[in-house]
Amino acid sequence: MIAELVCVGTELLLGNIVNTNAAYLAEKCAGLGLNMYYQSVVGDNEERMTQVIRQALERSDVVILCGGLGPTQDDMTKEVAARVMGKKLVEDPHTRKCIQEYMDNYLLSHPGLRLTENNWKQAIVPEDAIILDNGNGTAPGLILEKEGKSMILLPGPPNELKPMFEEQVAPYLQEKQPEIIFSKMVKVCGVGESMVEDQIRDLIDSQTNPTIATYAKTGEVHLRITARAENEAAAKKLIKPVVKELKIRFGEKIYTTDEKKTLEECVIELLKDRKLELTTVESCTGGALTARLVNVPGASEVLKQGLITYSNKAKRKFTLVKKSTLKTEGAVSARTAKEMAQGAVASTSCDVSVSVTGLAGPDGGTKEKPVGLVYIGCCCKDKTEVREFHFNGNRSKIREQAVVQALILLRESILKHYYCSL
Amino acid sequence: MIAELVCVGTELLLGNIVNTNAAYLAEKCAGLGLNMYYQSVVGDNEERMTQVIRQALERSDVVILCGGLGPTQDDMTKEVAARVMGKKLVEDPHTRKCIQEYMDNYLLSHPGLRLTENNWKQAIVPEDAIILDNGNGTAPGLILEKEGKSMILLPGPPNELKPMFEEQVAPYLQEKQPEIIFSKMVKVCGVGESMVEDQIRDLIDSQTNPTIATYAKTGEVHLRITARAENEAAAKKLIKPVVKELKIRFGEKIYTTDEKKTLEECVIELLKDRKLELTTVESCTGGALTARLVNVPGASEVLKQGLITYSNKAKRKFTLVKKSTLKTEGAVSARTAKEMAQGAVASTSCDVSVSVTGLAGPDGGTKEKPVGLVYIGCCCKDKTEVREFHFNGNRSKIREQAVVQALILLRESILKHYYCSL
Repeated sequence: MIAELVCVGTELLLGNIVNTNAAYLAEKCAGLGLNMYYQSVVGDNEERMTQVIRQALERSDVVILCGGLGPTQDDMTKEVAARVMGKKLVEDPHTRKCIQEYMDNYLLSHPGLRLTENNWKQAIVPEDAIILDNGNGTAPGLILEKEGKSMILLPGPPNELKPMFEEQVAPYLQEKQPEIIFSKMVKVCGVGESMVEDQIRDLIDSQTNPTIATYAKTGEVHLRITARAENEAAAKKLIKPVVKELKIRFGEKIYTTDEKKTLEECVIELLKDRKLELTTVESCTGGALTARLVNVPGASEVLKQGLITYSNKAKRKFTLVKKSTLKTEGAVSARTAKEMAQGAVASTSCDVSVSVTGLAGPDGGTKEKPVGLVYIGCCCKDKTEVREFHFNGNRSKIREQAVVQALILLRESILKHYYCSL
Repeated sequence: MIAELVCVGTELLLGNIVNTNAAYLAEKCAGLGLNMYYQSVVGDNEERMTQVIRQALERSDVVILCGGLGPTQDDMTKEVAARVMGKKLVEDPHTRKCIQEYMDNYLLSHPGLRLTENNWKQAIVPEDAIILDNGNGTAPGLILEKEGKSMILLPGPPNELKPMFEEQVAPYLQEKQPEIIFSKMVKVCGVGESMVEDQIRDLIDSQTNPTIATYAKTGEVHLRITARAENEAAAKKLIKPVVKELKIRFGEKIYTTDEKKTLEECVIELLKDRKLELTTVESCTGGALTARLVNVPGASEVLKQGLITYSNKAKRKFTLVKKSTLKTEGAVSARTAKEMAQGAVASTSCDVSVSVTGLAGPDGGTKEKPVGLVYIGCCCKDKTEVREFHFNGNRSKIREQAVVQALILLRESILKHYYCSL
């Protein structure tokens, strides 16, 4: 089955934003076993949009349109798609109700605002369309079908598009595509991509079905094992021995084999299982480490507080770093990281702490302490380990790497000092 | 003059990489005053590539092709482009010399490698082509001209494409296109998109040159005013009265007219200008607010610490929230937000504090206090303002909105209480 992608938006044609939706949808379609031969971008212009959509429908089985479903006059994807598919537009009471509820809620928190007439435009849908509810906005997604072909309309904002695709579009497409593609993810942390590739070169070279693909993420490598088979059970059977082999080769470096699980989720789980309380102490990451842990629902069970000790004064006050340490070693030093971690445990009576101090730049670097130098400490059962890193990249890239390495050190420390409990 | 972009690459169709070249080239073309109506992506397939290139050439004056100029058999962009333009392929001695020099240099630093026969493929070029030297790789760029139309072939790697475009392609296009496009961004916070549109409907309806486009962001709306003129000065003159009118209509809701500036940058600037020290206190946002402020280089001048008081105990210990408040009103309440903000000022002797407490979900909501309920407090010059919000969306969306609204309240409080200093 052939899928084609049409992204709508003047901001894409002007280069104001990068088309991350295209990469996301293309990857998802590939995962579902669909072939994609073309992608296009077109602006909010009736004539040109009509031409692009018509051509896509001629040469592909599934056309995914994304963007242009908003409430403003510019937004015309739905109208054009309906015309190309020969469908009338009608008001959908269910969607109108959803919009009403969404907006009632929204207006509660935005007292100065009011519902404007153009919001109701989003309740108008092509007849017979399958409506895809939008939990994160007012524009519903739509699936139009005609003569064996499907046109799928999705809202442009990624936080609306992604859950809609995963929860509603992927199952729809999976049903249309008989041979299934099934994949399993093995996530490895604390090993570089080229080392991972080196260690599995023989597996990659001999692969046919299943295949192994590696994806480098910051501080992590994800291995996707993909099998093509007549059904899920058969695919799983093909994948199982590969996962087993990977577990032998990477051991504890594998933090999950669950596609949906993140590193921070696994860390929170380790803490929960062992009933450990955590305190974070951040300097250069400025809250980003804690924010990532708090991404995990239920993090409050184990994460009781975070201290962002950005200034030296705050480091002394909240984490009892010694004045002499700051003076002789400096705020960015192994000793400061160590004292931050130990002080956090002492002052909050938690079980485990993790600390980060470093130079994220762009200014403040010296020859001895260049931008990118970061110390990460972890205090666990009276043992404190500190690691030194020299990260490359800009301010945000350095901070991102620091956050991941802090999670990795935290994970490894917990596994090392609390190995018994499970 | 109309430009069209065709990106070639199977990795784009599989979603393995994000098409940042498209955004880069589109932005550059817009800056040069070229109109772009279409962008396409196609794989390394002769038939489909021929079709896409032929269509682009029919409807546009300048077709920019990027990718597929490498030395392997897959790479066929040059061959297909030459065929569509009716040009023979010939070896270019100058390019052959460049490749030889580049490779000699490369092999010096990679002792194990050797030059392979297919590298010479890159010295074969369409007759009469303008050769664009590549200082960062072996594939030269090419410009083919025929009947007033141009086809520009660029290598895919961004580090080769960008300098080639800026140094060689931009001057070529500028000469062909005397008129320029210039735009200015006006960023508004604390007003919804449809209300912004309502307030400027008359301006949008009557626009010709300059034009106004709106872009909705979380908690913000960005307005881009774009003018077409013979030079930058003339374009600026056209844009000026529109910006002035927008300033009259939105007043202080406009936080910047600088395209590159973010809301957090403007907040940090306000604090810096007034020499104010800030403490953040976060519960449900768990560090995300502070992390966003720390995105700004030099934030350490004004942000001294952040307290992530996730547990009730931490709220009491670090921000002196009263036990009775937590008991009678609960952790998610206006009074708790108020006491968090006030306690932060008291315990850290800062000038300004901002606090966030709320229910990010997915669990923990009740009928009285549903998921999405967030209180944001700001203590400034002994005055504490607390706002109540009911956000929609999932956990991360709720937290993202809370962060933006905290920045907005912080900004408004500073402007209100420290209006005099500038």
